[in-house]
Amino acid sequence: MAYFGDPVLAADLLFRPDHSVIDQSLNSRLGATTTNGDGFGLGWYGDGPEPAVYKSTQPAWSDPNLRELAYQVRTPLLFAHVRASTGTAVQRSNCHPFRHGRWMFMHNGLIRDFRTLKRDLVMAVEPELYPHIEGTTDSEVLFFLALTFGLDDDPFDAMARAVGLVEDVARAHGVENAVQMTAATSNGSCVWGFRYSTEGASRSLYYSHDVGQLRKLHPDVAVLKGLGEETRLIVSEPLLNLPGAWVGVPEASAGVVRPGTDEIRSFVPVPPG
Amino acid sequence: MAYFGDPVLAADLLFRPDHSVIDQSLNSRLGATTTNGDGFGLGWYGDGPEPAVYKSTQPAWSDPNLRELAYQVRTPLLFAHVRASTGTAVQRSNCHPFRHGRWMFMHNGLIRDFRTLKRDLVMAVEPELYPHIEGTTDSEVLFFLALTFGLDDDPFDAMARAVGLVEDVARAHGVENAVQMTAATSNGSCVWGFRYSTEGASRSLYYSHDVGQLRKLHPDVAVLKGLGEETRLIVSEPLLNLPGAWVGVPEASAGVVRPGTDEIRSFVPVPPG
Amino acid sequence: MAYFGDPVLAADLLFRPDHSVIDQSLNSRLGATTTNGDGFGLGWYGDGPEPAVYKSTQPAWSDPNLRELAYQVRTPLLFAHVRASTGTAVQRSNCHPFRHGRWMFMHNGLIRDFRTLKRDLVMAVEPELYPHIEGTTDSEVLFFLALTFGLDDDPFDAMARAVGLVEDVARAHGVENAVQMTAATSNGSCVWGFRYSTEGASRSLYYSHDVGQLRKLHPDVAVLKGLGEETRLIVSEPLLNLPGAWVGVPEASAGVVRPGTDEIRSFVPVPPG
Amino acid sequence: MAYFGDPVLAADLLFRPDHSVIDQSLNSRLGATTTNGDGFGLGWYGDGPEPAVYKSTQPAWSDPNLRELAYQVRTPLLFAHVRASTGTAVQRSNCHPFRHGRWMFMHNGLIRDFRTLKRDLVMAVEPELYPHIEGTTDSEVLFFLALTFGLDDDPFDAMARAVGLVEDVARAHGVENAVQMTAATSNGSCVWGFRYSTEGASRSLYYSHDVGQLRKLHPDVAVLKGLGEETRLIVSEPLLNLPGAWVGVPEASAGVVRPGTDEIRSFVPVPPG
Repeated sequence: MAYFGDPVLAADLLFRPDHSVIDQSLNSRLGATTTNGDGFGLGWYGDGPEPAVYKSTQPAWSDPNLRELAYQVRTPLLFAHVRASTGTAVQRSNCHPFRHGRWMFMHNGLIRDFRTLKRDLVMAVEPELYPHIEGTTDSEVLFFLALTFGLDDDPFDAMARAVGLVEDVARAHGVENAVQMTAATSNGSCVWGFRYSTEGASRSLYYSHDVGQLRKLHPDVAVLKGLGEETRLIVSEPLLNLPGAWVGVPEASAGVVRPGTDEIRSFVPVPPG
Repeated sequence: MAYFGDPVLAADLLFRPDHSVIDQSLNSRLGATTTNGDGFGLGWYGDGPEPAVYKSTQPAWSDPNLRELAYQVRTPLLFAHVRASTGTAVQRSNCHPFRHGRWMFMHNGLIRDFRTLKRDLVMAVEPELYPHIEGTTDSEVLFFLALTFGLDDDPFDAMARAVGLVEDVARAHGVENAVQMTAATSNGSCVWGFRYSTEGASRSLYYSHDVGQLRKLHPDVAVLKGLGEETRLIVSEPLLNLPGAWVGVPEASAGVVRPGTDEIRSFVPVPPG
Repeated sequence: MAYFGDPVLAADLLFRPDHSVIDQSLNSRLGATTTNGDGFGLGWYGDGPEPAVYKSTQPAWSDPNLRELAYQVRTPLLFAHVRASTGTAVQRSNCHPFRHGRWMFMHNGLIRDFRTLKRDLVMAVEPELYPHIEGTTDSEVLFFLALTFGLDDDPFDAMARAVGLVEDVARAHGVENAVQMTAATSNGSCVWGFRYSTEGASRSLYYSHDVGQLRKLHPDVAVLKGLGEETRLIVSEPLLNLPGAWVGVPEASAGVVRPGTDEIRSFVPVPPG
Repeated sequence: MAYFGDPVLAADLLFRPDHSVIDQSLNSRLGATTTNGDGFGLGWYGDGPEPAVYKSTQPAWSDPNLRELAYQVRTPLLFAHVRASTGTAVQRSNCHPFRHGRWMFMHNGLIRDFRTLKRDLVMAVEPELYPHIEGTTDSEVLFFLALTFGLDDDPFDAMARAVGLVEDVARAHGVENAVQMTAATSNGSCVWGFRYSTEGASRSLYYSHDVGQLRKLHPDVAVLKGLGEETRLIVSEPLLNLPGAWVGVPEASAGVVRPGTDEIRSFVPVPPG
């Protein structure tokens, strides 16, 4: 889940039980997902240009420190992620979101047969970036490939090249359907979202419709009242009990949420050279 | 889950994927229950008269040390418990099984409105036993009440008095349906099981039928081959895919599994005074 | 360590390596103490009337989340505590500071022979407060005794009665030198500090001299520049490398740090009855 | 610490307080080292050909599960390691001993400027072995280089080539004094120990003299009584209070402890090519 908009108390998004539909849904959704929960993480922009990250391998629901934190953190840009491991170790350094400098990145999905491809992929990471890889996941390698291919300059292009490289390496190893991905990344100013899979059957990704319209549809929903027009939520699953709230991101698309006009475009991997 | 019989590798009960029906079912059952998993514990009799306990607040499925251990521990008497907290903190000292001297105890269920009753219940624990209470759960207090009322001499009577006291204190505080309990306890020689609830609607409890008969019914099930006639499993839920294997413990009953003839009898709480 | 004064970034007190003497000393002191480190905790007043607490059994130096947090938390009132267990379990609920409503409490020292005295002491806690005890330490019981005896109305008196009760119960059990204590408590507006031991040989307790004077003595110390006149630090050990900074609290004394004039007075336990 | 000899209860080596000098010293030594404790690990050969490992980032002294385990594990070959991180994350996968198949490996020391050298070193690991690297430490990479260079066939030669490669890569990057190492490895049948550093100033390494002689010198030391002639301990620091017990391994040496005659020889890195 990515939140971008007016500064909000993290607890209002994650826990606040008295606040009505959105947060309750988020909460239950969080609960649902954590039934496979191999760690979770929060990342947010607060003091300083770099995001802060709070990550733990303890289930989110039983971590009292997360609750304490959530009632103190007020931020305009929050990532929350619950991990279901696809094979790599359950350790903090494998929890999302990953961070490098101003950038945060989180990913649902996998690089298929990662153990086979890992060495070639890691070798493609810019040597100066390489020592900053902290964990052992496919997701973090995808992030570092994107950093290698210019995430800082053009996130759409960098992700297209990163995915293109993974698919190319996979082909060389005879691995099919290499990439399954919904992902989000941010530099603190904008949030980019991606929905793509090699086989064209990607996991779902939704973003929230404009808040003004939602307020009219649901005048009784408390949490909507405080939020400005540009507030956006990006989530993996539609929160069904707020009709009109969610727009599905099409297959093989990427979008950016930012002050001013958002944008959505198709996502086409760029194979190497 | 309680196991009593021929020495067995803990992994054969908990993990071994290639061993056929019983253990796979146990494993999936373990997985199912841990979706609410607020810690887990193993207790077993090995070296020395006191049981060893391995308990952790990490989900069982993501604890590599549990797996290491399970492939090294060979024991004739194993308790395995997955905790779903009914309100008390997720910390090791609140994980089952609890231990005192030679005794182990584990419990599914709750003492209703425990916060209201706790002080009176804890006061009823034998003062010399009191400082040995390590955690903050209703279950551990139930165990210490049973120890207070003579668990060492007569487990059936001690548990009847413990439950009777809880119901008495509950009545005094206007709390209805005070006790919901399936529980097991052992001193290393026998295993006692209990199924009771004040309202007469207890959670299920099953034990395995005699192994000889099972072997005839299921000659293809590998794990059954090595086990002697007296091997018993006590579980909360029937493992459905082994027809003929499980016998339900009746409402308001208690039983003992031991070398020689097992016994099942009705369970009637004994009020104080 | 307790900090009270102008809002400060927690990291400036705990980590910032480039900031000169005070924080370096704090940091090294923290490191020194944690060599026996059985958990640590931060408590601070931020959003809302109740303090937030971040507590963990992991060593402070290897907890990446603590570092993340410390660079995001800005507060006028911070407690930091490193625990050396005197026998009770290493678990979060035993870490200081403890919290109840607006109150925080932390303690260095012990109640001697606590296992013997515990039952009587816990029984003296107000029954409505009793279920809020979360851990198993002597320190938390001392806190709840103080709450029982009116911490909210008169902290000096409440602590005097709490300590008086402990000494009285200890006498009844033949336990000598019952209390060894340096402690601090706060309601968010003031900080009270206590230095007392039954045998008259208390651990040390120091508070920082007025910052204006310190700034004149040490014009090169960066962290002093931003701090207002009323800023106070209360610590267990003098930070030697800042001469003129620290004033020892006399044996058997209690003090309050608050906006306006601070106060220090003698501390005399009040026995029950 | 490595133990090789008659099967012994792990607790007798790690905890048993009543057993006299050797174990007390081990215990205090363990305590001393853990003051920088960034995790610990046990590895031992028990059931099955592969060693079991129990590793945790919690301080050894506050891990109740370690104590439980130590009183149940009886083994002829035990490695115990306490980690002081030289920069990499405190996580289980970075704790020693490392394991691959039948092999265990543990290391005190470091590869200097590992972040600079890491990519080249990791690239030199056999591609089929590469995905089995679980953590991010220099020590594990050293182990995998040794595996790459034939640890299974000739541990002396494999380690010499591994160290030779590290020194070669370091030279290419302008890194001096690349390797500082005391290390031990085992396949379950023998234990190999290594003491080497590029600058010729290695950390100390000791092994225990023959037990028969020790028993004569110290007839009062209980733990010595049960041990056979071939029992060996290999430790980083001499346990001073048992005179006559310890033999220092010379600078730039390697040795093997095995049934029959042990052997010690000089250790000379073999550069690549």
